[in-house]
Amino acid sequence: MIQARTLKGFRDFLPRQAIKRQEIIDRFRKIFEQFGFDPLETPALEYAETLMGKYGDEADKLLYIFKDNGDRNVGLRYDQTVPLSRVIAQYQDLPLPFKRYQIQQVWRAENTQKGRYREFLQCDIDTVGVNLAQADAEIIDCMLTAARSIGLPQPIISINDRTIFDALLLTKKQIAVIDKIDKIGKEKVQEELEVLGGVEGFKKLETIQKTERLTEIVTFLQEAGWTEGTDFKFDPFLARGLDYYTSTIFELRDKQYSAGSLAGGGRYDKLIGTFSGRDMPAVGVAFGFDRIMDALEELGLFETQSTATTVLVTVFSPEEAYRSVALASKLRKKMIRTEVTLNPKATLEKQLKYADKKGIPYVIIQGPEEKEKNVVNLKNMKTREEKKGITVEDVIKILTM
Amino acid sequence: MIQARTLKGFRDFLPRQAIKRQEIIDRFRKIFEQFGFDPLETPALEYAETLMGKYGDEADKLLYIFKDNGDRNVGLRYDQTVPLSRVIAQYQDLPLPFKRYQIQQVWRAENTQKGRYREFLQCDIDTVGVNLAQADAEIIDCMLTAARSIGLPQPIISINDRTIFDALLLTKKQIAVIDKIDKIGKEKVQEELEVLGGVEGFKKLETIQKTERLTEIVTFLQEAGWTEGTDFKFDPFLARGLDYYTSTIFELRDKQYSAGSLAGGGRYDKLIGTFSGRDMPAVGVAFGFDRIMDALEELGLFETQSTATTVLVTVFSPEEAYRSVALASKLRKKMIRTEVTLNPKATLEKQLKYADKKGIPYVIIQGPEEKEKNVVNLKNMKTREEKKGITVEDVIKILTM
Repeated sequence: MIQARTLKGFRDFLPRQAIKRQEIIDRFRKIFEQFGFDPLETPALEYAETLMGKYGDEADKLLYIFKDNGDRNVGLRYDQTVPLSRVIAQYQDLPLPFKRYQIQQVWRAENTQKGRYREFLQCDIDTVGVNLAQADAEIIDCMLTAARSIGLPQPIISINDRTIFDALLLTKKQIAVIDKIDKIGKEKVQEELEVLGGVEGFKKLETIQKTERLTEIVTFLQEAGWTEGTDFKFDPFLARGLDYYTSTIFELRDKQYSAGSLAGGGRYDKLIGTFSGRDMPAVGVAFGFDRIMDALEELGLFETQSTATTVLVTVFSPEEAYRSVALASKLRKKMIRTEVTLNPKATLEKQLKYADKKGIPYVIIQGPEEKEKNVVNLKNMKTREEKKGITVEDVIKILTM
Repeated sequence: MIQARTLKGFRDFLPRQAIKRQEIIDRFRKIFEQFGFDPLETPALEYAETLMGKYGDEADKLLYIFKDNGDRNVGLRYDQTVPLSRVIAQYQDLPLPFKRYQIQQVWRAENTQKGRYREFLQCDIDTVGVNLAQADAEIIDCMLTAARSIGLPQPIISINDRTIFDALLLTKKQIAVIDKIDKIGKEKVQEELEVLGGVEGFKKLETIQKTERLTEIVTFLQEAGWTEGTDFKFDPFLARGLDYYTSTIFELRDKQYSAGSLAGGGRYDKLIGTFSGRDMPAVGVAFGFDRIMDALEELGLFETQSTATTVLVTVFSPEEAYRSVALASKLRKKMIRTEVTLNPKATLEKQLKYADKKGIPYVIIQGPEEKEKNVVNLKNMKTREEKKGITVEDVIKILTM
């Protein structure tokens, strides 16, 4: 006998969670398409060389790299930006700008003690081929629209421009320290920079002005109906960890959820060049899907639903199972989500208990009396109210309302 | 510079294909939920011991097995039936029968020269916890409904009962030979069985009768509105390759598509016991999603669509980009899929060319004259007809029709 277990950092999503996840994914897709992003799918496995050296040294250690049966070095997808960059370099006849969304799993061999997962879903949008502030603003506009559409109460996006760090001569290592400001606080950052250098630049961040690009982004966002200070704000301390960002960077949080950022992204004008040999501007964002699910749960913004099924057709006796199936067929043809009892020997009481345990909101009962009159009884499992002797057409009307 | 390439047997899905795939997935989900199946997700990686020895010796060689960073033997999902079995054994308080659907990628290190993929999508439905013919029939009913809903013209399901092979004393090896009947023909099968044994049993299959279970399944399918001979048929030669089936087996084909089966499944009453230590009856099917996509394409049943976007808002001049974004925001709020030109220096002609290349069906143009009158022009890119001087409200009416 083999022990039934999942790997550390990997999760099963049973119906109650899977239904919720699917609902959020559907909403994201809808918004992404409203903003003119088209879907893209890339493989879970890539050549190892495609993935390595793109995310910084620390991240490289978290890659799932192995040899496949053909002795090739391969790795599991770590994010969706590097695969996108590969796609752009590989298919040179894609119409530009190329605007795509991508909603797939990524894998990182994280230390699970920090409450991190090793398999999680990312929801990305990216615009490739233009370096306009308009493109950056469109991504931020779409982020805010998506955040609102899934019900986040007070989403706000912090925006910065990495060229500010360059102007202040801050190095990658120093930026990585500044990136920890939310976790360790300003004083600790300053302490670390006193050892590493960069304190001068860090202090100047306090009073730094928006870049030209940031000013333009603000105007675009205002034209799209968003308000500075409420929906988005300039934050000169925002650093974002990843190596590949070149100018605009941004991060989504919700004022009512303190446990961290819900999405992050920026402009990366040099990454695609590592594949194609010629630079290609790009900007995009990745939503941290699991963090968002946690936030919605914590904020009590999610009505949980333990089944997608609307109605259970009970079976009066084993001989009547055929008739119950025929009735279910009628309902299904009207797009009603219908289950038929798969235990014909169960008492009616047991069948009702099953509906309750599963959370099915309605039950149809048809005894010999109802059968003779060609009617049914419809029981609402929440109110326990039972509509007796109604026709199947009546049932369809009630359940499709 | 790193070569931009995908691994053999792995594919990118660019928007034209990804849009189609998503459409079929959505239809499957809808039908599965209509039949009372709820979604389930399991991890891409499992303990290697969970996967090995479940599919037969040949299949074991196709598993992607490797050591993770923690030196654990892990493997990529090979199908969705074994992970489901693990889930059932692991969460003992799931309400039974447990009816789930699962739509995720699986990985097999197949010989790609046969035109097979190493990463492909499976769409599964399974009912766990009952051994009724009614449950088998419900799966077949759902298969036929799903096949029709995605537009397959003449779907037909072959059904058999593996206990027939047991009654004829046919061994697993002999059944594996019979399984090749569609590929190599009856005569070749007979030749191979003359060496291996089992010719007597094979000959008896010609005249064998339906089992009691199969007779019951037929009645249920007829109650659900399907016709024997047209929608489903008894096929005593149907064998299905996988080791774990115990009685009913079935396979979906389309009479107008000869290149193979589109879905296959059956009853597997012993598999879950290998995890939980106690047997648990189960029945289910896996749709071969990529084969189905190929079939729809080959049968000319798919209108290709190269973008999900409905309309492109052009930009008259760089200074007017803000106004175009504001207009796009209005359309997006009405759920219209809208793109704004991200190249404000491009001539109108170039912007129209971009819409054509991307396949965007409508374009909005607003010059100084229209701006003054607060109207726009709407160009239909297919008919080249242009509605001039209409209001944004008119545009919304036309595009949401």
